Amino acid sequence: MDDPARSVVELLTKRGETVAVAESLTGGLVCAAITAIPGASAVLRGGVVAYATELKATLLGVSPELLAERGPVNPDVAVAMAHGVRARCGSTYGLSTTGVAGPDSQGGFPPGTVHVAVVSADDSEFVRTLHLPGNRGEVRAASVAAALELLVGAADTSA
Amino acid sequence: MDDPARSVVELLTKRGETVAVAESLTGGLVCAAITAIPGASAVLRGGVVAYATELKATLLGVSPELLAERGPVNPDVAVAMAHGVRARCGSTYGLSTTGVAGPDSQGGFPPGTVHVAVVSADDSEFVRTLHLPGNRGEVRAASVAAALELLVGAADTSA
Repeated sequence: MDDPARSVVELLTKRGETVAVAESLTGGLVCAAITAIPGASAVLRGGVVAYATELKATLLGVSPELLAERGPVNPDVAVAMAHGVRARCGSTYGLSTTGVAGPDSQGGFPPGTVHVAVVSADDSEFVRTLHLPGNRGEVRAASVAAALELLVGAADTSA
Repeated sequence: MDDPARSVVELLTKRGETVAVAESLTGGLVCAAITAIPGASAVLRGGVVAYATELKATLLGVSPELLAERGPVNPDVAVAMAHGVRARCGSTYGLSTTGVAGPDSQGGFPPGTVHVAVVSADDSEFVRTLHLPGNRGEVRAASVAAALELLVGAADTSA
């Protein structure tokens, strides 16, 4: 399969669009994958790694009530993270990841429970929930791929 | 050599201290290296990937005048990024990277020109300038290692 990060850079470059990334369990890997591609600076504005839960509120503007009610491993939190990073970085798309990398469960969710989300310029929201097998590294790598693929799909369906 | 990310997680866990990371050329790789280690959530608060230059001002509070005068590939900018991410994430240490990954030069600096910085809880500042050989991937990987090693050294010299 093609490198999904290369597909993102090529597609957004062609469209003249940009992305910003809010990451929890992937901890910077999505940004790192995009910035591995020469020419990434044309499409990646930047990102926020909100690893500590309260940083999802303070750095990304996720509602503290939503975080308190649902916890950080939640699809609505993923969508709110994508909105927040898009607004703060001034990008066409906001992309986000939240979930449980393992080895321990978190908030009652087993490792591999992952939500990825995209918000596009017309405020369309895309979210996908995954139940991924594998160890911490495998869960994180599969989450990166799923996030990038969700972004490509969202861009393809945008006008 | 030991994995420097593992050394960071073990050292800060033992000391009950935390870190936050502001990244430019490494684009998330420093955070990703730390979060690859199980137990990273005890020591990593979060991070900011300020890839577009103006995000160094808007997300990290680096002086726009400093950025305009010196450009983003500058040791004082690295120190200001470390201060900014430390303040915004509420961590013991702020760690930062800025530089030229390549393949092209930037602002008159050749690929491999890299500044890494650490700011500690007593506002001590550590900065190291590197002239790294290799391609884009090699420059980025060596920058990650240098940043993590600077943090270990700074923590070792703290009271």
